[in-house]
Amino acid sequence: MALSVHHLGIAVPDLDAATLVYSDLFGATLEHRDRLEDQGVDAVSLRVGPSRIELVAPLGPDTPVGRFLAKRGPGMHHVAFEVADVAAELERLRAHDVQLIDEEPRRGLFGLQVAFVHPEATGGVLAEFVADGSK
Amino acid sequence: MALSVHHLGIAVPDLDAATLVYSDLFGATLEHRDRLEDQGVDAVSLRVGPSRIELVAPLGPDTPVGRFLAKRGPGMHHVAFEVADVAAELERLRAHDVQLIDEEPRRGLFGLQVAFVHPEATGGVLAEFVADGSK
Repeated sequence: MALSVHHLGIAVPDLDAATLVYSDLFGATLEHRDRLEDQGVDAVSLRVGPSRIELVAPLGPDTPVGRFLAKRGPGMHHVAFEVADVAAELERLRAHDVQLIDEEPRRGLFGLQVAFVHPEATGGVLAEFVADGSK
Repeated sequence: MALSVHHLGIAVPDLDAATLVYSDLFGATLEHRDRLEDQGVDAVSLRVGPSRIELVAPLGPDTPVGRFLAKRGPGMHHVAFEVADVAAELERLRAHDVQLIDEEPRRGLFGLQVAFVHPEATGGVLAEFVADGSK
């Protein structure tokens, strides 16, 4: 079961421009910046008080986030739920025949253990499990 | 400036079915249920630990959320930032020529004072300010 919403993921074409917008409009502050070559994204984690927003920008058009931007335009991309144990959550959902994107946990942005649940299982929302050992 | 992410708003066709999904998959618990006739929505507020998810379902097809569902399908609809004073935030953004949906605060779901910022101003994300006097 999830402990909290860990972050809201937003797909943007330009990380620096979007970081400035979220800073100016909502007072967000930069926490981390990272690149995941195998997933084709650059990302920043922003803090708004205790909450987090993750901005993801594609490294090229032929990446999942590049295709998302081409199809839907910039906007909300995923919601991440913090859990204690990603593998245990996947096992629990699998036992209920919930459709998953990742069958096993993998390394996500900022070195965190993550896995994605298919939007078909949630009614259209790309959901992520995150185990954040830093807290 | 925002104090936190108050909630993530998700558009769904069926509140009861979606509430059950978020309960089963993520352990979300029901906090409130409300109807806003003038905005054409039924809504529930769910808690996931300290975080909130708001599910909104349209009262009919010719409502903002009804049109959203017809155009984009179910999924993430808006992100709400908690602020101390909605009117002061609108004034601050207006001074920077930020495009607003609501020029003045109005009563939102669950009796909270709210106002929406236009997605054009944020790069595609419908953003809401919420002043939550209950906390």
